[in-house]
Amino acid sequence: MIKVYSKDSNYTYTQGFFPTFELVNKKKDKIINIYVSSDSLQSEGYLKLTKLVDPKKIIVSDKTYAKLASKGNDHVVGVFEKYEEELNPNLPHVVLVNPSDMGNLGNIMRSMLAFSYKDLAIITPAADRFNPHTIRSSMGAFFSIRQETFSSFEEYLSKYKRPYYPFMLNDKAQGLKNVEVPSSSFSLVFGNEATGLDKKYGNENTVFIEQSKDVDSLNLATAVVIALYKFSRN
Amino acid sequence: MIKVYSKDSNYTYTQGFFPTFELVNKKKDKIINIYVSSDSLQSEGYLKLTKLVDPKKIIVSDKTYAKLASKGNDHVVGVFEKYEEELNPNLPHVVLVNPSDMGNLGNIMRSMLAFSYKDLAIITPAADRFNPHTIRSSMGAFFSIRQETFSSFEEYLSKYKRPYYPFMLNDKAQGLKNVEVPSSSFSLVFGNEATGLDKKYGNENTVFIEQSKDVDSLNLATAVVIALYKFSRN
Repeated sequence: MIKVYSKDSNYTYTQGFFPTFELVNKKKDKIINIYVSSDSLQSEGYLKLTKLVDPKKIIVSDKTYAKLASKGNDHVVGVFEKYEEELNPNLPHVVLVNPSDMGNLGNIMRSMLAFSYKDLAIITPAADRFNPHTIRSSMGAFFSIRQETFSSFEEYLSKYKRPYYPFMLNDKAQGLKNVEVPSSSFSLVFGNEATGLDKKYGNENTVFIEQSKDVDSLNLATAVVIALYKFSRN
Repeated sequence: MIKVYSKDSNYTYTQGFFPTFELVNKKKDKIINIYVSSDSLQSEGYLKLTKLVDPKKIIVSDKTYAKLASKGNDHVVGVFEKYEEELNPNLPHVVLVNPSDMGNLGNIMRSMLAFSYKDLAIITPAADRFNPHTIRSSMGAFFSIRQETFSSFEEYLSKYKRPYYPFMLNDKAQGLKNVEVPSSSFSLVFGNEATGLDKKYGNENTVFIEQSKDVDSLNLATAVVIALYKFSRN
């Protein structure tokens, strides 16, 4: 019987119909099983599921469902194999250096998708991108975002050579409002929630998001979404 | 003995040292009592508090603290009277029409402060701005933001006449990237999380935040922070 997620599992899962349909639409080949609660058998979501997924993979089990679901009204849990991908070298990337919060990580995936960024590099140590909480926070955007992890920023850069924009709390850097958005591929680089980016990341492209001195700093997910919006094209 | 917050209470409270210091710094005259846990008596936060607040108002009570605190490691709860304020008619306003989520409401307050907006109009029915969860989500920004509620948008407009920018999911409206930020006072108007703004709000200033069709719509707090950033001056 399937166990509650742990970091060492070779599988993870979605909770709820909406992200499970994202899994089905984007990564069907990674599905191991889909568990549904018996009270969902009359639901529209369940009927739709049976049309999209091999019925042998759908298991009605209130016990498994109750164990893996987040709050008890998700009705469905989609168990899938963890998988690895490479980033698209020709598109803009978001690089998160040591992000520590799974909720932020998922939110950032959702914001990326909203502004058509599909490539995310994560420098470890980092919050577990496969944790069901991250997937849930992404509202299913998880399956649309290519994700690749690196043990250092140098390792990332040696694989993907391109100009990068480190976001830092350095009001001598260029203000985001004045940045000229490049026409070639680029990377937007953000530090950890508590510590930000180390000085060594600073370069001629360093960006500062103009903000009031009344707040200590923007929340990471907020800073990222403002940057994504500014760097996105109409 | 003080009761857990309810909407009808004439008081509410902060949870944790950081927002409590914001209360002390910004709205000292509204403080009723500050409750601390006995295990916080050696802490730096407690010592600082005793220097800033009339010691008669500080009460050591593990029982009250445990009842009102959010998670058990806040160490302090600052009980204060609810209060009413008017907006500054000469500054930009944010107007939220029927916001339904307390977390969003608090987050928006924090984002407002980050970009130096200090005036928030709330059109009711709306999430309870005085609920401790809202105050907590604002990370103390609550006390820096003037807040005024109105039973309709018309009531708001008749008091504060000015150009307003309704944000709508209408891709025929002007894109946010192309908006000319006005030099006079203005209001940025956002609808409810689920339903957005009704068509009747549309005007010649209607704004659309350019976004991918892959995500149904931006989270309200995300849409607001992008708009605030764009409309803020350096």
